[in-house]
Amino acid sequence: MTDTLADLLDLAWQRLALGVADRNAPARYPVLATLGADGWPAARTVVLRAAQRIAGVLEIHTDTRSAKVASLHADPRAEIVIWDPAVALQMRLRAEVAVLTGSAAAPAWADVPDVARGNYGSLPAPGTPIPTPLAYEKAGEAGRFAVLRAQIVAIDLLHIGPAHRRARFRRADGWTGEWLAP
Amino acid sequence: MTDTLADLLDLAWQRLALGVADRNAPARYPVLATLGADGWPAARTVVLRAAQRIAGVLEIHTDTRSAKVASLHADPRAEIVIWDPAVALQMRLRAEVAVLTGSAAAPAWADVPDVARGNYGSLPAPGTPIPTPLAYEKAGEAGRFAVLRAQIVAIDLLHIGPAHRRARFRRADGWTGEWLAP
Repeated sequence: MTDTLADLLDLAWQRLALGVADRNAPARYPVLATLGADGWPAARTVVLRAAQRIAGVLEIHTDTRSAKVASLHADPRAEIVIWDPAVALQMRLRAEVAVLTGSAAAPAWADVPDVARGNYGSLPAPGTPIPTPLAYEKAGEAGRFAVLRAQIVAIDLLHIGPAHRRARFRRADGWTGEWLAP
Repeated sequence: MTDTLADLLDLAWQRLALGVADRNAPARYPVLATLGADGWPAARTVVLRAAQRIAGVLEIHTDTRSAKVASLHADPRAEIVIWDPAVALQMRLRAEVAVLTGSAAAPAWADVPDVARGNYGSLPAPGTPIPTPLAYEKAGEAGRFAVLRAQIVAIDLLHIGPAHRRARFRRADGWTGEWLAP
């Protein structure tokens, strides 16, 4: 299943698709690493909302006032990491991330269930100090909803097994890939 | 269990300790995010080897020739992220990472089982292109073994529940902590 470059890349996209479809799949919860506005690397768990192989795109939803949006406005470069224990596969996806808001985010907002909309509009803004743990409100607000559209430029896959296999694929090469020492 | 700042911080350290002790615990496999040598953010899954609460230190083992060592030599700033689904806790640990090698790494090397030593000395070096997937050797070598000693400077905890709770703790404040809007 991971003996050829094509098989390995197929496996990764299968697992990404499963992450979108199944809330219990490991690829549902990638880590998104960015360059923090204060110069530190910053990384946090996110929820994978779309994986489009032909376009080479992943999508994540967030609040426009989150620190990751500020980071990505300042520098769109990111790495998305998933460890999928069910198939012993680490996926590292280097991407340039566009922040879509307003009308560009409206189709995705229309698909967000009412019960989940409160995640995009809490008051005060995410990361604001508050006096007690529940001193905030959830108030769904389309104007605070953003789609992070990650255009993948490279994929580094590491399959752990009796013998490890690692390969890197680049958009610029048409995703043909090459093997790397693990 | 997460109603007070002290309880929340206790929970995080309990889960980190479990990650060191139990290879099946979620905290066994953090993501380490750094500033890549090429300017991109870089993140990868690592194995948690030590968690020392009093010192505020986490430890990870790696190959001296890995890209993360080059990154950390250039800039020691890092963020370590763990999503622990068993307790619905996200841990983000901002740290400055020292790379220990040679005699400084010798005590840790002495504790690495023979069967695992091959992970610290593969030839060619990790990330080198190779013609076929298994065109590399594992050759354990103390001189290629490094301990990444992460001195934590801040901890951001997010507990997911019927109501989410988020808090930030800083070494500079003696880890007293403050609540944040999630």
